[in-house]
Amino acid sequence: MFTLDERLQKDTLVVGRFELCLLLLHRDSNYPWFILVPQRKGVTEIHHLSPGEQQLLLAESGLVAETLASVFLPDKLNIAMLGNIVAQLHIHHVARFKTDVSWPGPIWGAAPAGAYEDSVLQQRLESMRNALLGKIEIDVE
Amino acid sequence: MFTLDERLQKDTLVVGRFELCLLLLHRDSNYPWFILVPQRKGVTEIHHLSPGEQQLLLAESGLVAETLASVFLPDKLNIAMLGNIVAQLHIHHVARFKTDVSWPGPIWGAAPAGAYEDSVLQQRLESMRNALLGKIEIDVE
Repeated sequence: MFTLDERLQKDTLVVGRFELCLLLLHRDSNYPWFILVPQRKGVTEIHHLSPGEQQLLLAESGLVAETLASVFLPDKLNIAMLGNIVAQLHIHHVARFKTDVSWPGPIWGAAPAGAYEDSVLQQRLESMRNALLGKIEIDVE
Repeated sequence: MFTLDERLQKDTLVVGRFELCLLLLHRDSNYPWFILVPQRKGVTEIHHLSPGEQQLLLAESGLVAETLASVFLPDKLNIAMLGNIVAQLHIHHVARFKTDVSWPGPIWGAAPAGAYEDSVLQQRLESMRNALLGKIEIDVE
């Protein structure tokens, strides 16, 4: 059975659930930083998913990318699968701004995580849930 | 008409051409580092590609990933679209090892680029061309 990696559990909030993936919001306030995690046990690379699952991932990733672009109006999206530290397959989707603390570098291993005010974190969570209304299940907790 | 970004031209060698993407080998010897570039003018994000082009990208990226896994036997693949510096859409595919100079951090903005010996660079280019024989056009230069 699929269970979310402990580090990801600790670092994120659950936005909701697509057909294949959980959508998570990272608690680092430096960036609008979302993560898709295919709900498949023991998968560490995209090419280990079945063709059908890869199609779902492509669709869900595209939906998250379009939503980030329209909600946050970033200068660039960064989409990445690294997994050097957390092996469970997870796909970062980060809205980047020329004014953000790590621009133009990557965000991983860069600036220390910023602390959200609770109200801002909740607002960010709700803005994504609203933008994805009807496309994501949000009764996950 | 599509032309490859100047920075990418300078930093890479062309391995070959898939239906959608050019496949490039980065000149940084620290990692087996390959880059797919969709041959479409002015595209900076995956979700700007047509659905058919996204399908091609998924297939070509999967093929590169499987090939890297079988040729280099890495501990992990890193696949990423950043584009903060080079806006032209390009997808990094990097074979990572627990012994490499940047592990477990990301490779971008990390260690200075390593210099290949010419023979090693050519060998790496040929090993990918051989592994992709029949799947990639290599008469591109």
